[in-house]
Amino acid sequence: MRIACVLAADFEDSEFEDPYRAFLEAGHEVTVIGLRANEPLKGKKSQVTVLTEKSFDDVSPNDFDALLIPGGYSPDKLRAHDEPVVFVKSMMAANKPVLAICHGPQLLLAAEEYKRHRMTAWKTIQGDLKKAGADVVDREVVVDRNLVTSRMPQDIPAFIRESLKVLEAVPARR
Amino acid sequence: MRIACVLAADFEDSEFEDPYRAFLEAGHEVTVIGLRANEPLKGKKSQVTVLTEKSFDDVSPNDFDALLIPGGYSPDKLRAHDEPVVFVKSMMAANKPVLAICHGPQLLLAAEEYKRHRMTAWKTIQGDLKKAGADVVDREVVVDRNLVTSRMPQDIPAFIRESLKVLEAVPARR
Repeated sequence: MRIACVLAADFEDSEFEDPYRAFLEAGHEVTVIGLRANEPLKGKKSQVTVLTEKSFDDVSPNDFDALLIPGGYSPDKLRAHDEPVVFVKSMMAANKPVLAICHGPQLLLAAEEYKRHRMTAWKTIQGDLKKAGADVVDREVVVDRNLVTSRMPQDIPAFIRESLKVLEAVPARR
Repeated sequence: MRIACVLAADFEDSEFEDPYRAFLEAGHEVTVIGLRANEPLKGKKSQVTVLTEKSFDDVSPNDFDALLIPGGYSPDKLRAHDEPVVFVKSMMAANKPVLAICHGPQLLLAAEEYKRHRMTAWKTIQGDLKKAGADVVDREVVVDRNLVTSRMPQDIPAFIRESLKVLEAVPARR
């Protein structure tokens, strides 16, 4: 599967790195997409620095089978711009696997894609989602068809486990 | 006026420092309250470091006449804990001046204090507030009785100007 990972600076280091490595090890491709291509992005804990491969202008949602949204401050930075919001909306509208952890569902809020699925998120974002009318539960991982969501770094093993199941259940469209 | 400034790490440097200095220069007292007392907090741009004077356990809303909520990542960190949310709710319930900029209104969301006032906020938080049913406008500063809100660092001069007017209009309760 060709997985798009959308990222901005101050992402939660482990929420990028652990799923990224696990997906590569499982044989998937992961492309890091940022507001600019070839930009080094540092995690909020300064443990991980990653170079963006593509900008949103360089890619189309049609190029990818699935979407990974790590948490930290990255999702709120991305959703201040139209391109990432449109990209997320398009992946959700196509019912492709969307894997969002921690603050990741802030992008689902901005993309108006939070009413068709049950989900979880970081505790403060759970509150925003509930006030917006979303169906929110407080569990380490929630799988609702194509959408996999988790709350925080401690949930990463469950998030990776359920994400891999969803990725393997959907045929790649290449 | 005795102003409580609620702060966590990774605040937007200028949104703390500029109002803080302006309020002191105007003769007000400002007390920096954090999750722990005597903790150095660095701004997200690493331009400003401030030592918290009190923890939420050390103070009561009755000790203060007004509340300042700088933006950046600080408000989302604070609202993950009960004490800051209860503090903000109490200041709003008492109709004391509440001065919130950028991500500051995330604390109004968590405190369930966003339905009685017109407000603005950082663009992404405007979206969350609207989805929650708040009356949101996109202006450099919005004054609605005791509540003063602004969107971003560029709005700081207007935010300070209108905040000082509201502070001067309300008699201190000391």
